[in-house]
Amino acid sequence: MTSIRTDLALEATEIYESKEEKKIPGVIVDKDGDDDIRITRVRIENETSAKVLGKPIGNYITIEVPRLKEKDVDLMEDVSRVLAKEIISLVSLNDKSVILVVGLGNWNITPDSLGPKVVEKIMVTRHMTEYLPEQIDESVRSVCALSPGVLGITGIETSEIILGVVKRVKPDLVIAIDALASRRLERVNTTIQISDTGINPGSGVGNNRKELSEKTIGVPVIAIGVPTVVDAATMANDTIDMVIDNLIKEAEKETGFYEMLKNINREEKMALINEVLSPHIGTLMVTPKEIDGFIEDISYVVADGLNISLHPGIHMDDVHRFIN
Amino acid sequence: MTSIRTDLALEATEIYESKEEKKIPGVIVDKDGDDDIRITRVRIENETSAKVLGKPIGNYITIEVPRLKEKDVDLMEDVSRVLAKEIISLVSLNDKSVILVVGLGNWNITPDSLGPKVVEKIMVTRHMTEYLPEQIDESVRSVCALSPGVLGITGIETSEIILGVVKRVKPDLVIAIDALASRRLERVNTTIQISDTGINPGSGVGNNRKELSEKTIGVPVIAIGVPTVVDAATMANDTIDMVIDNLIKEAEKETGFYEMLKNINREEKMALINEVLSPHIGTLMVTPKEIDGFIEDISYVVADGLNISLHPGIHMDDVHRFIN
Amino acid sequence: MTSIRTDLALEATEIYESKEEKKIPGVIVDKDGDDDIRITRVRIENETSAKVLGKPIGNYITIEVPRLKEKDVDLMEDVSRVLAKEIISLVSLNDKSVILVVGLGNWNITPDSLGPKVVEKIMVTRHMTEYLPEQIDESVRSVCALSPGVLGITGIETSEIILGVVKRVKPDLVIAIDALASRRLERVNTTIQISDTGINPGSGVGNNRKELSEKTIGVPVIAIGVPTVVDAATMANDTIDMVIDNLIKEAEKETGFYEMLKNINREEKMALINEVLSPHIGTLMVTPKEIDGFIEDISYVVADGLNISLHPGIHMDDVHRFIN
Amino acid sequence: MTSIRTDLALEATEIYESKEEKKIPGVIVDKDGDDDIRITRVRIENETSAKVLGKPIGNYITIEVPRLKEKDVDLMEDVSRVLAKEIISLVSLNDKSVILVVGLGNWNITPDSLGPKVVEKIMVTRHMTEYLPEQIDESVRSVCALSPGVLGITGIETSEIILGVVKRVKPDLVIAIDALASRRLERVNTTIQISDTGINPGSGVGNNRKELSEKTIGVPVIAIGVPTVVDAATMANDTIDMVIDNLIKEAEKETGFYEMLKNINREEKMALINEVLSPHIGTLMVTPKEIDGFIEDISYVVADGLNISLHPGIHMDDVHRFIN
Repeated sequence: MTSIRTDLALEATEIYESKEEKKIPGVIVDKDGDDDIRITRVRIENETSAKVLGKPIGNYITIEVPRLKEKDVDLMEDVSRVLAKEIISLVSLNDKSVILVVGLGNWNITPDSLGPKVVEKIMVTRHMTEYLPEQIDESVRSVCALSPGVLGITGIETSEIILGVVKRVKPDLVIAIDALASRRLERVNTTIQISDTGINPGSGVGNNRKELSEKTIGVPVIAIGVPTVVDAATMANDTIDMVIDNLIKEAEKETGFYEMLKNINREEKMALINEVLSPHIGTLMVTPKEIDGFIEDISYVVADGLNISLHPGIHMDDVHRFIN
Repeated sequence: MTSIRTDLALEATEIYESKEEKKIPGVIVDKDGDDDIRITRVRIENETSAKVLGKPIGNYITIEVPRLKEKDVDLMEDVSRVLAKEIISLVSLNDKSVILVVGLGNWNITPDSLGPKVVEKIMVTRHMTEYLPEQIDESVRSVCALSPGVLGITGIETSEIILGVVKRVKPDLVIAIDALASRRLERVNTTIQISDTGINPGSGVGNNRKELSEKTIGVPVIAIGVPTVVDAATMANDTIDMVIDNLIKEAEKETGFYEMLKNINREEKMALINEVLSPHIGTLMVTPKEIDGFIEDISYVVADGLNISLHPGIHMDDVHRFIN
Repeated sequence: MTSIRTDLALEATEIYESKEEKKIPGVIVDKDGDDDIRITRVRIENETSAKVLGKPIGNYITIEVPRLKEKDVDLMEDVSRVLAKEIISLVSLNDKSVILVVGLGNWNITPDSLGPKVVEKIMVTRHMTEYLPEQIDESVRSVCALSPGVLGITGIETSEIILGVVKRVKPDLVIAIDALASRRLERVNTTIQISDTGINPGSGVGNNRKELSEKTIGVPVIAIGVPTVVDAATMANDTIDMVIDNLIKEAEKETGFYEMLKNINREEKMALINEVLSPHIGTLMVTPKEIDGFIEDISYVVADGLNISLHPGIHMDDVHRFIN
Repeated sequence: MTSIRTDLALEATEIYESKEEKKIPGVIVDKDGDDDIRITRVRIENETSAKVLGKPIGNYITIEVPRLKEKDVDLMEDVSRVLAKEIISLVSLNDKSVILVVGLGNWNITPDSLGPKVVEKIMVTRHMTEYLPEQIDESVRSVCALSPGVLGITGIETSEIILGVVKRVKPDLVIAIDALASRRLERVNTTIQISDTGINPGSGVGNNRKELSEKTIGVPVIAIGVPTVVDAATMANDTIDMVIDNLIKEAEKETGFYEMLKNINREEKMALINEVLSPHIGTLMVTPKEIDGFIEDISYVVADGLNISLHPGIHMDDVHRFIN
């Protein structure tokens, strides 16, 4: 069995279950939240299930907010609060903890600029806790933040820069923000994934991340990702699948074209689509037309969530005063 | 027969010919150029063909440059020269002509910002020809340029602003630059359409343009458009069509699934796809991930082409000196 | 007597009074507010005083906020409220009034970009009151907004564009936002002037505004200006004057250099400074190093003030929800 | 004797010579170039002269281009060539050299954003020489580039980030680009200083650089700086000095105010100006109104100079093709 390629653990489990028509052993899935904010906690428990899903052992929390693109400020604040709560559930911090927030991705490519855009909005305090400790009380933790750029811009591997900085700053926790690829257009800019496994090789919009995890940098790494692009071929394939599934459901249409759909070999079909599309569009990733505004909004949601989760005395109302 | 919905006259003719398997009467199609720069001149000659294609009577010149996204500066300059030549073939200017270049679209939405981005790069001279005529010689025509914004930003119809300015400035020619929607992802950011019919209602990325033509503003209007988005449902549908066509070509695969494809009713299929997709993604328009860089490059190509076509004494080398 | 050259009526009266050591006849000056927000209302009542001050007959309200650069959000909100109150005192609006907000200045030159930056943050509603009146209630007036650019960018006089748009939109009131020049560095980015006389020729940072007033466009014009630059020679001169004044105050220093200061002819001195400086720096305007952030903050203050003054049902809290 | 505070070694020598009316022992000054491009090479030879000028022992090359703000493309290219030649005279590179270009300064503050703006335009090649050596020939050296941000943005000392990266990348040379403060407004945005002494503590627009030199990071550091701001009090003081000097030159004006000028104690005067100005404007730094465009132009000049100096096979014409 081949492993499943998607940046979202939630999608990987969905694909497995849809193909195999059964639960994956060694994966615990817990659903929470409501229609506005759906929370799915996936726990990959062993190497076998890790291999099946193409993701390391660990926790993956997905927050899905179908209406996130509607610029509903109350909803955005609620999502930040939920995000903060889920982040806190995965980390263990004390008064003296130093946190380094890393914004991965290319700031010149809007759908890949989520990380740098979040970093811009992080309440950075490490220089004050270090140089002006008297101005700082226990309401604020020592937070620093960096956007290292991408290989094509700097000529330096992102992981080299981060490792170099980690060795100097010696943080207790690294939080890496990254834009992801989803298989479903409706997840784009509406979904946030938090995991305690760090960044996996080859994930992300830029497709050439190296591993960034406790194993490689010696510090726990929380990854926060938002899908901002879909692969055009995957999207076309999934659309066809949705059409086929829809047709199969309609039982009365049991003749000709429709009947035969049931027997389609779906892996063969995806290969076919790739073969047909690639001379025309290559491996094109697409993003919604309104990506500039979506990235701006979601970067506020993620930054607000981080700010209230990392600083014990900072609440949603304070964050708003800084944002203006 | 329903009219065909696309911003490109070239696509409208392709769709007609592919469906009807014959040429459209009253439409003259002339092909020119080479593999790098393909030129197609479509002339819609009468009301019947105009209705069939959903486009007014007039000339539509399409320049397709499959490698335009590759940042090949020599190719980009060649395209600017071809564009200039085709623009000149459609207009009639003299030494005293005043030209108003209008950049349509929303500068806050990258794929809709082509017009404003081109306007930024136009060599504006009207104030000098008016206030400092001695500094200006016959190598330069009187050019002014404006990006009126969109209704959601200004609260004013774009056409109201343009009409107000036209009444004051009294140009001899208006050139309107706009981002368009294509049906094919491979045309996005690789194609330029020039027409002498102005802007049609409902075209463009923002989808709510009012008519901008000699009829509505009393001055000839040349429209220059570049497709920068595709409708996700259209793209999925066209992908399926490409798959089907590809399969049909492979004659040996004459059984089961493949055989039956021949008999698919394609209009029914598009309706089906829309029905299946719309609850998930609405009428979503998508754009390639790298849209920021593409728009920047193409805005240089279009602005350079305009600058050398409008100013008789300005050549590609001079333009480069201004660009830096 | 020569007229006094400054964009601020308050400065013009100060200069007159300092030179002549008496009040100007025909000018009423009223002071209000507190140390944080000082309000000075200058009313120029007749042609004689208008000529002396180099400003048309009318009302000029100056709001000085020395701590405005400190990013104190509470103070910023208070200033917006004061601004709204003063704007309302100068205009007369009803439920059906249509207001056009015009952002003057060059968006490519940060200290001249205040107008366009304010316009970006205006709650624009005219298209809704026109096309979707049922979605709009009496809490919102019909507001539209436009940044016409500057002559060097468009090749079109700003006043031509505005007049063209005014003829189409037929607003009841035009509000023009502009960046100004001050004589004192400490007024830069800390002062807002509101006047009901419109924009005077030659004022503003770009120095080439044409008149924009009820006389030229047929609609009342409120001008809101913020000084963002000082002329380097003026600043040097005023610094020398401050030094001299300071020295004169210190009575014990009655010998040599200091004694003689009293007898300096100050107009001769300014001419001297101009003569000495101009070969080196021309007529250079300077702005504080941190201008990017200051312009951003003040554009929020002005836009918030406008939003709550123009829309009867919109309050400071609502504005904040839109800002995020 | 107090040390002299300015970022430019050239200004430090000028001030010394003007005050002391003699050459500084241990400092060699060599002048070159023409009226358009004046080159001054200052060599500080020993600790005594280093202390007097407040600058470390080493070479300081100043390129002054009074017309640099005029957007003369030919002149700009000439300056890039001169810059390249002077850089090459200070460094010793071979085919295998790895160079790290560091853009110091705050990208959110335009006059402090020179470093990051230059880094954006550097031809980065290290990733290709490392991962795709066959695509690279001897015309290109291994160059990487990074803008580390400033303490207030990241919470991390710039020198910590650079040291961390230097330890990973192991470059043979670091080139640090920084915006500087000048004492003279006419030097702002018209002057480039190159030195082989690295970055001194407390220099730069942000005023809180830590030392960045071979001593602190173990690698030779070339610093390239452009003054983009002046201190307002210094400017006022220097203006007064220029006025006084001018008056003294005019011998016929030998009475009253003028006579006495000769006897002014200039250090006392500067203290006086600071005392008078500081309650009003603090220690305000100012920059020309048109700073956005100046920074853009100069960042091209510096980046072009670096690109042709670092890559043996890249010439001015090639650079232009990349810039577009």
